[in-house]
Amino acid sequence: MELKQASKSEPYLYLQIAARIEKQIMNEVLKAGDKLPSVRMLCRELGHNMSTVTQAYYELESRSLIETRPRSGYYVSVLPKKRLAVPETSNPSAGAALHSQDDLIARVHQDSANPKITLLSLGVPHKSLLPIAKLNKGMIQAMRTLDGSGTSYDQVQGNDKLRREVAKWSLSWGGDLNSTDIITTAGCMNAVAYCLLATTKPGDTIAIESPAYFGILQLTQTMGLNVLELPTNATTGIELEALKKALATNKIKVCLLVSNFNNPCGSSMPAEHKKEAVKLLEHFNVPLIEDDLYGDLYFGANRPTTCKTYDESGLVLYCNSVSKTLAPGYRVGWVAPGKFKEQVMRLKFSHALSSTTITSEVVADFLKNGRYENHLRKTRQILYNNSLKYSSAIANYFPENTRVSRPEGGYFLWVELNKNVNTLDLYERAIKQNVSIAPGRMFSLKQQFDNCLRLSFGLQWSDEVEKKIKLLGLLVNK
Amino acid sequence: MELKQASKSEPYLYLQIAARIEKQIMNEVLKAGDKLPSVRMLCRELGHNMSTVTQAYYELESRSLIETRPRSGYYVSVLPKKRLAVPETSNPSAGAALHSQDDLIARVHQDSANPKITLLSLGVPHKSLLPIAKLNKGMIQAMRTLDGSGTSYDQVQGNDKLRREVAKWSLSWGGDLNSTDIITTAGCMNAVAYCLLATTKPGDTIAIESPAYFGILQLTQTMGLNVLELPTNATTGIELEALKKALATNKIKVCLLVSNFNNPCGSSMPAEHKKEAVKLLEHFNVPLIEDDLYGDLYFGANRPTTCKTYDESGLVLYCNSVSKTLAPGYRVGWVAPGKFKEQVMRLKFSHALSSTTITSEVVADFLKNGRYENHLRKTRQILYNNSLKYSSAIANYFPENTRVSRPEGGYFLWVELNKNVNTLDLYERAIKQNVSIAPGRMFSLKQQFDNCLRLSFGLQWSDEVEKKIKLLGLLVNK
Repeated sequence: MELKQASKSEPYLYLQIAARIEKQIMNEVLKAGDKLPSVRMLCRELGHNMSTVTQAYYELESRSLIETRPRSGYYVSVLPKKRLAVPETSNPSAGAALHSQDDLIARVHQDSANPKITLLSLGVPHKSLLPIAKLNKGMIQAMRTLDGSGTSYDQVQGNDKLRREVAKWSLSWGGDLNSTDIITTAGCMNAVAYCLLATTKPGDTIAIESPAYFGILQLTQTMGLNVLELPTNATTGIELEALKKALATNKIKVCLLVSNFNNPCGSSMPAEHKKEAVKLLEHFNVPLIEDDLYGDLYFGANRPTTCKTYDESGLVLYCNSVSKTLAPGYRVGWVAPGKFKEQVMRLKFSHALSSTTITSEVVADFLKNGRYENHLRKTRQILYNNSLKYSSAIANYFPENTRVSRPEGGYFLWVELNKNVNTLDLYERAIKQNVSIAPGRMFSLKQQFDNCLRLSFGLQWSDEVEKKIKLLGLLVNK
Repeated sequence: MELKQASKSEPYLYLQIAARIEKQIMNEVLKAGDKLPSVRMLCRELGHNMSTVTQAYYELESRSLIETRPRSGYYVSVLPKKRLAVPETSNPSAGAALHSQDDLIARVHQDSANPKITLLSLGVPHKSLLPIAKLNKGMIQAMRTLDGSGTSYDQVQGNDKLRREVAKWSLSWGGDLNSTDIITTAGCMNAVAYCLLATTKPGDTIAIESPAYFGILQLTQTMGLNVLELPTNATTGIELEALKKALATNKIKVCLLVSNFNNPCGSSMPAEHKKEAVKLLEHFNVPLIEDDLYGDLYFGANRPTTCKTYDESGLVLYCNSVSKTLAPGYRVGWVAPGKFKEQVMRLKFSHALSSTTITSEVVADFLKNGRYENHLRKTRQILYNNSLKYSSAIANYFPENTRVSRPEGGYFLWVELNKNVNTLDLYERAIKQNVSIAPGRMFSLKQQFDNCLRLSFGLQWSDEVEKKIKLLGLLVNK
């Protein structure tokens, strides 16, 4: 085994060892069923102590990559062998827009109000993923330190400390924002809404990925925009050739991308694609609204870059929030609008005056004290484990010809079923058994993706979840 | 004196007595300098005890309506005699729109960041007006009772308890809302923004009062609306004849009114006008966005009604919040959008997903436990006293030909100076001496109201404030 030079990017030795073994499994150097070297042997070979190697094996086991057989040792799990194919690049329909989408979105959203329902439909972090006790402490602290305990208006641009922390944080994705570049918002969608209002007027055309998050689709519709859905690869995101062709028609007013761990596909644009996309958009002088809501939730060793990382002209409007990592209910997000800063400021002032004072302060402190990075490390681990368990269950219980995306971060699996399966029917049948899924139809304005569905793995893995996925598999097989 | 039949609408006997005496002073039955009956005499006459009558006199004294002269007794103050005239009905200019307004608004707004500046410009309740300790207790309670301590997404429509309380509260203005009629928002302007997005598209024409709140004007501009500023009376609000004429042209797409204690005029539409306005708008099938932000801050005996009170067709979209009464920084507001409910819901979902969970809950509890009514009673009293003191100071220190509005609630005095005074210059000179005023130019898209200014009396009356108003008077006299 080539384990001597452990990966440097993992912070802990045991994680470095685990990462190396995982890579060998993924590359099928180690095949399903292969016996792994004993802990003792690996210790001798690598020169590490027993507990480090044992911990590495525990780690891999917890990710379902290897398994113990009593009195025999560690073996590579059968999971990788049963790995399903990845969905093909989308080929969006050019048909007329669909108008029944609103009702479907509202219906699926309402499922969250019923506690009996296992919510595999929505990208909501489960309570157990949130650092509630620490946030509560932060809340009490903020009441003490804020003038007026947070009852006063915040400045229009937003909490100064929060903007400084967000600016510092931009280093993690290769950005170099200043606190003055940033405007706080009531979550990421609120940021996206201001960006769209700043860059378009009704009748303009926007280019987006396909499939796309239904909230973004609905926003474009309330704003009277024409939407051009572009072919998107389930692994690498939007197809650059298609984007280039669309831009060349000179009809595109703005482009909107979820560049990392996309909702719903789970795709991430490679750094080179991001660079290339920014160059293209600059060439055509078309602004890019980048929704990086999931960027901090990477499973790999490093935080992926963003399109904003490569933005030199100020055409990228970068949006993010803590709604998927810390506290959805706090409504704390932000935007770095580049050259559109004045427009976005004016929009925020006239649409909402200011952000919620106290929740901004709590988040600012959480970032400032390094608690955020600490919390994210745990969250990423849990989500990664969840993604493997969910994928594995789908491989076990769904038909063999099912395709499923392999996200390297975020919350979502995009599942493509046999063409003759209708996931709207599947939704109806599943909801009767208290399971909620997001039918593919929600993710386009055209009548397409009817054989697809999005599964969120934000809900902690459990026997209950496994039972529900098994149930879904049964319904699909029918 | 005709005091035997005390006013029934005041909750306390001493306030009933005070209200009666006040009426006689206002009607000049009792004239400035008149001696009032002694406490002992009034007791005998009315059959009340000493302490009640004394308290009534204290009350009137605290409002600057009467004054004691040592060893002599109580006298009617000279204030009413020096009362200034009310501004005349506006006659909005029909000239081209002005584009430098944004900078002015931003500048005046930034004054609030400098604690050295006496802020007479902005309608911000002073900290001392807010029940901070009680709200903090509510915050701790909400962390305990809310599932996830308020970190989870709220439902799209908003906190259920808050909507129920707002519905109950609508009885106070003669409304009969259900909790299902209401959608929560991030403050009142946020509600107004959704209402405008729901009812207009760029290029449409909106009819509003003139002068009008600069935030509303800016909102119309970011949305590409044409604004028709209509003549407005400083006491009774929009001129109905002008509204009727405008509607008859069939160009008006929506009307927006601040019907009670208007910002900046302080005007309130009499109930009959509200009824008539709603009838008119119904006749022309034009929706009315009603901003009732100041409605709860009445100085008189009763909560004024709203236009929504008389709405039978669902054309009135009613907006309100607690930003001027409880906690601006909480960003808790709401809208009852009538027949536009579905559109507003969709807009809220796509622009912000949901409201801040914890602050909604705290406000809901505050309303539920009757603390709100209790708190409002005190706030109204303080604001009323402030309004009298500020008015009296203006009468004392400003030129005799100054006109000033006589609001019966809210936060604002509208001051009209000699035609050759330019309040933009006055702003520049005042800010050098650390006083911020709101120049009249901010309240129109046309170049007008240059000799007017808005003074907020949200800042507690003090010798310091008196000094600053005196200073303003000096600057005006120059």
